[in-house]
Amino acid sequence: MALRACLRGKRGLTAVFSQLSSCSHGRVSPVLVAQQRNNSTSQKVQVDFDQSTGVAVLRMQNPPVNSLSLEFLTEICINLEKLEMDKSCRGLIVTSNRPKVFSAGLDIFEMYGKTPERCAEFWKAVQEMWLKLYGSSMATIAAINGSSPAGGCLMCMTCDYRIMADNPRYTIGLNETLLGIVAPFWFKDTMTNTLGHRTTELALQLGSLYSPAEALKIGLVDQVVPEDQVLTTATEAMSKWLAIPDHARQITKSMMRKSTIDRLTANRESDIKNFVGFVTKASVQKSLGMYLEMLKNRKA
Amino acid sequence: MALRACLRGKRGLTAVFSQLSSCSHGRVSPVLVAQQRNNSTSQKVQVDFDQSTGVAVLRMQNPPVNSLSLEFLTEICINLEKLEMDKSCRGLIVTSNRPKVFSAGLDIFEMYGKTPERCAEFWKAVQEMWLKLYGSSMATIAAINGSSPAGGCLMCMTCDYRIMADNPRYTIGLNETLLGIVAPFWFKDTMTNTLGHRTTELALQLGSLYSPAEALKIGLVDQVVPEDQVLTTATEAMSKWLAIPDHARQITKSMMRKSTIDRLTANRESDIKNFVGFVTKASVQKSLGMYLEMLKNRKA
Amino acid sequence: MALRACLRGKRGLTAVFSQLSSCSHGRVSPVLVAQQRNNSTSQKVQVDFDQSTGVAVLRMQNPPVNSLSLEFLTEICINLEKLEMDKSCRGLIVTSNRPKVFSAGLDIFEMYGKTPERCAEFWKAVQEMWLKLYGSSMATIAAINGSSPAGGCLMCMTCDYRIMADNPRYTIGLNETLLGIVAPFWFKDTMTNTLGHRTTELALQLGSLYSPAEALKIGLVDQVVPEDQVLTTATEAMSKWLAIPDHARQITKSMMRKSTIDRLTANRESDIKNFVGFVTKASVQKSLGMYLEMLKNRKA
Repeated sequence: MALRACLRGKRGLTAVFSQLSSCSHGRVSPVLVAQQRNNSTSQKVQVDFDQSTGVAVLRMQNPPVNSLSLEFLTEICINLEKLEMDKSCRGLIVTSNRPKVFSAGLDIFEMYGKTPERCAEFWKAVQEMWLKLYGSSMATIAAINGSSPAGGCLMCMTCDYRIMADNPRYTIGLNETLLGIVAPFWFKDTMTNTLGHRTTELALQLGSLYSPAEALKIGLVDQVVPEDQVLTTATEAMSKWLAIPDHARQITKSMMRKSTIDRLTANRESDIKNFVGFVTKASVQKSLGMYLEMLKNRKA
Repeated sequence: MALRACLRGKRGLTAVFSQLSSCSHGRVSPVLVAQQRNNSTSQKVQVDFDQSTGVAVLRMQNPPVNSLSLEFLTEICINLEKLEMDKSCRGLIVTSNRPKVFSAGLDIFEMYGKTPERCAEFWKAVQEMWLKLYGSSMATIAAINGSSPAGGCLMCMTCDYRIMADNPRYTIGLNETLLGIVAPFWFKDTMTNTLGHRTTELALQLGSLYSPAEALKIGLVDQVVPEDQVLTTATEAMSKWLAIPDHARQITKSMMRKSTIDRLTANRESDIKNFVGFVTKASVQKSLGMYLEMLKNRKA
Repeated sequence: MALRACLRGKRGLTAVFSQLSSCSHGRVSPVLVAQQRNNSTSQKVQVDFDQSTGVAVLRMQNPPVNSLSLEFLTEICINLEKLEMDKSCRGLIVTSNRPKVFSAGLDIFEMYGKTPERCAEFWKAVQEMWLKLYGSSMATIAAINGSSPAGGCLMCMTCDYRIMADNPRYTIGLNETLLGIVAPFWFKDTMTNTLGHRTTELALQLGSLYSPAEALKIGLVDQVVPEDQVLTTATEAMSKWLAIPDHARQITKSMMRKSTIDRLTANRESDIKNFVGFVTKASVQKSLGMYLEMLKNRKA
């Protein structure tokens, strides 16, 4: 509960962590605290921080398919916040510890049969994850070692660079319309910044899911490499990003993304209202129910 | 006259049509009325609506080259309005019933030697056509079976998808500058949304007309197919669009296009003034006169 | 001094030139004055104007590498202003009279160890050069016969068309971050207008310098030709631009660029403050000092 509450602001989060460290570890040297803070393995997120390179690898492991539930998003945000606060951490690689999938996107169970209050809390966490990743001062690379539809694709697009496994069974895209729902304006803005207006219009209207080769062609990913080389390629690519002086890279990144970030920041409440109003509609609940039923039958 | 007046607003138009149906048909079953309303063949526009698929085909037939005169634009708008009001009509294919040409664009005779009032009425109809097509809640596909310069190209760009005949004699583009006139800001906005800023800057400044292959390369059309397969390909493509739940596709489309549409809606009067002021200039009248003279000589 | 002061506005500049011509030449025929005004060879800029074609060629010759110093920028601006005022001059080709380099960009000596007042004066001249070139009513073509990093790349991007020598040793790009500095928002806007958002994000963050082939691929240049054909190709390309009626081309160009130009015009003072504040920082001075030291050692 405290963790969720702290998502509201950076200051709040720092305070909470200070309390946590002093509570759980007692007196430890600052270095050890720092190490422990950056090499954390919670249930759903594993973070390995290499102080010699300044690069952290965040591995998502929320079985079965890294669906972005409220709990999972909260853990991701806490870990991002920790890394962001650590000045020695300059680069972040985001990848999956689950087979065949990077992230299946927003957890539909968080949208189905839930109270408006819970839906609002969930949506706030989705916004928070996007704000933290798209506005990160770290150089960020998505090592996309599996399929990445909807919210998974959004996570990838927040990164500075995208490398995808060359497996034609994997797909990536914002396929919301296929489920009868609509990607919100800041998903759209992120995709427009990545693919341009026309390709985004096509991709969003048709809910297109692209193979790695197709994604490369339209610029949705920057590199496609053999599946077992995704992480090593990401590490190599990161060294190019870290060759740039941090402050110049950070100001440049902010200059490119600020107006898009400001737009959500200025409209968070109305965006939450909009989401809750839409998702709690009877017609949308029915669509989602049918979709979940279909998934259940497919499994069985 | 009533028809032209009704272009001012959807409410007005609905009212007029209600009167028309009751006047001309007397008591008929609602189904029959609906059929008659959607399979209309006026002098210049033929509409075939297939209720089994939900797809209407609008064929332009304003000899010789589908020039967009005030009268023709008015007919197009009326037919679009009818289809838009019919909830069973989900997709629209726009094509030409004239050989070798999709549409030659705005009728220059409407700009030459006309009163400012008439010019204003004409320009309002051009705006109305764009507003109806670019903002259509239907999935729209242009089956471009001939050349499509200037206003013809604009019509194509308003559609969700563009398929062009693979005939190197056909060209498409906004070639206004070649005639010494200037594409207005919303033509420019539509092209920028389609091709991006740089390609639009080149295309508009040089008044470039592209072959089908070139148009495909820069993204001005989405597919190029043999001439006799344009319509069948459009029909196949449409089924992909209609596989998406209407409300999700419509909201997404509106999200992508709203700011562009709002910009014209907020500036219709000044845009009309601007057009009338420009086109009635002596220097522009002279340019247009020379151009028309050249066309006449070329024919003879 | 008077020349620098006159950069403030077109009116001011005209006045100054009028004085200059009457002072230095006494009574001459208007035609001769015009010719002399447009075929000027100052120390750092050579301008050849061909009245039969309406095309001027501006050659930069500020040894060793056409670094954009305050003095050089002032000369460039004065020459641009002269050509802009001459209605018979319709096209401008910008090229270099120095071997292997188009322009090395902003002169770092103008940023290192200078007073804030001098830095401000310098930055104002950089803005002025951009405003004059990006807003030029002439058709402008960059004949890029050598490397063109940073401010040199900016100059190229202000032109309507770019032709680069096919020499893999030459590079072009906004590489500011490599030096620990940041391209200002209007450099960024110009590149976004040229390459789109995503490519610009990558290019600016990584400070990428592209070979001619790479630059062609991402759209940073429009044509790559053998080194000895750069200028002839530019001349041929210019004839396409001059085939378009001037007023239509000029209004179209302004429509495409106005919002970008207005943004700097509305923020010149804050942009100068921002630059001066940044560049006079101890940390930035140190970075620049190290960079200059490195250049010195490389030479020796």
